[in-house]
Amino acid sequence: MHIAVLGMGRMGRAVAGRLLDGGHRVTVWNRTEGKAAELISAGATEAGTVAAAVSGVDAALTALADDAAVTSVAFGELQTSLDSGTPYIDCSTVSPALGAALADGFGDRFLALPIVGGPGTVTAGKATLLAGGPAQLRERLAPLLGTLSERVRHYDSAAHALTAKVTTNFLLISGVAALAEAFTVGRSGGLGDDQLRELLADAPVVAPAVANRFDAVLTASPDGWWTTVLGAKDAGLAVDIAAEAGAHLPLAEIVRTRYEDAARTNPGADIAAIAALYRDGGDSAQV
Amino acid sequence: MHIAVLGMGRMGRAVAGRLLDGGHRVTVWNRTEGKAAELISAGATEAGTVAAAVSGVDAALTALADDAAVTSVAFGELQTSLDSGTPYIDCSTVSPALGAALADGFGDRFLALPIVGGPGTVTAGKATLLAGGPAQLRERLAPLLGTLSERVRHYDSAAHALTAKVTTNFLLISGVAALAEAFTVGRSGGLGDDQLRELLADAPVVAPAVANRFDAVLTASPDGWWTTVLGAKDAGLAVDIAAEAGAHLPLAEIVRTRYEDAARTNPGADIAAIAALYRDGGDSAQV
Repeated sequence: MHIAVLGMGRMGRAVAGRLLDGGHRVTVWNRTEGKAAELISAGATEAGTVAAAVSGVDAALTALADDAAVTSVAFGELQTSLDSGTPYIDCSTVSPALGAALADGFGDRFLALPIVGGPGTVTAGKATLLAGGPAQLRERLAPLLGTLSERVRHYDSAAHALTAKVTTNFLLISGVAALAEAFTVGRSGGLGDDQLRELLADAPVVAPAVANRFDAVLTASPDGWWTTVLGAKDAGLAVDIAAEAGAHLPLAEIVRTRYEDAARTNPGADIAAIAALYRDGGDSAQV
Repeated sequence: MHIAVLGMGRMGRAVAGRLLDGGHRVTVWNRTEGKAAELISAGATEAGTVAAAVSGVDAALTALADDAAVTSVAFGELQTSLDSGTPYIDCSTVSPALGAALADGFGDRFLALPIVGGPGTVTAGKATLLAGGPAQLRERLAPLLGTLSERVRHYDSAAHALTAKVTTNFLLISGVAALAEAFTVGRSGGLGDDQLRELLADAPVVAPAVANRFDAVLTASPDGWWTTVLGAKDAGLAVDIAAEAGAHLPLAEIVRTRYEDAARTNPGADIAAIAALYRDGGDSAQV
């Protein structure tokens, strides 16, 4: 198949690379050019506009940061230039409300495909795809999904797939925030980092996906791909989904606030950098 | 050895039962009598007073609910009646500050021995013991500890063992609270409980110890042994340890507040019952 991948953040590049490796033809586009050099060496074509990127493709795919970015691309040039029968797939983590709006706007050719797993997991073909849309479309796109990963969960609507994604993300980002506070408890009580590592690194109270970031949280490392800004956004999506149904989530609200606090200092840092708020036993962001 | 076990809550009973099974002689005591029938059938002796319970024993052990209960027993009848050379072991989850005070009051014969794992885990011999006290005392008590579990982590002070316990507990109780909110997100977005089970029951974003309570949180089950009151206490201990060192833990504070909210409705319910605060999509406790 010939796929246009719109958005060359880390996730967009991983998806495009995986599709190329799987034998698909890939055209890439990004708001600012020059982020796709490696993909172009590997055989992708870069287009200067969304219209040029999606011309004649079998499917268009977006992998963008948030609701605003997806809205701008999807309801902008994409909608006006995509051939009327061509499927549109969005891999971004956006609100179920936007997912529903995209399903309205693009009809039964829209598939929400949020991805559980980081870019490295996508590259390795080990990510879990949450496919939300009409059954017929999911069947039609099965070869494409199969290239990305064998692990696919199916949902009958974009909104349900996105709700599942936000629910999953919330557990990971709240787990990272709780680990940062747990380290603060341990250090405040006089335990050294080696003692904390021995106590908790393989402990059943730490989720495996959080344990992947264990040393990153211990050192408040900024290196990674899931930024504090995205963490705040994802916690906010969780709060909003619940609020829409009349439910109040005090824990998620605090998690969002903490990532916002962390993002003020270092917006490009990984979510593990939330631990910097607690470093040296104090809480500089609150003072 | 002849051991006095003071406190016949679920944990005290599990510890006493395990010691009996291991061939030790056990005398039990509780503030109110009549909770030890099964142990007495199994060979334990019940004493009417702390003084009678600890008379002539090789070690006294407390397993009580909180700082107030331990303070009352340890600095009351226990201190005045325990033979001067006899070791005193406290298995309760109390503050490191109380641990330090007990080490002061009882000297180098005091061992803090908080236990990671529930009563069932203790009974099965699979719990992790956090032994905090003088090295000589830990060696002397090795046969007793070995009867309880092969898994022992050693700390040079009672305060450090208790800090490790509170750090561990905080991760579990915050994980349970986050799971309750995650379910609320999923349900608010229209996912059914079967879909949430499929998405999350074995997902790497849920810690194994939290996954043990997965269905209990999904159903807000009150059945279990770690009560909402104890959850609020443990989160409070985490907050206090950090505050003592000048650190502020916004997440732990909210977790404490949520368990306090849950405890107002049903103090004897398991921590999983925190999910009842969110049931039916609303948040009755906040309204």
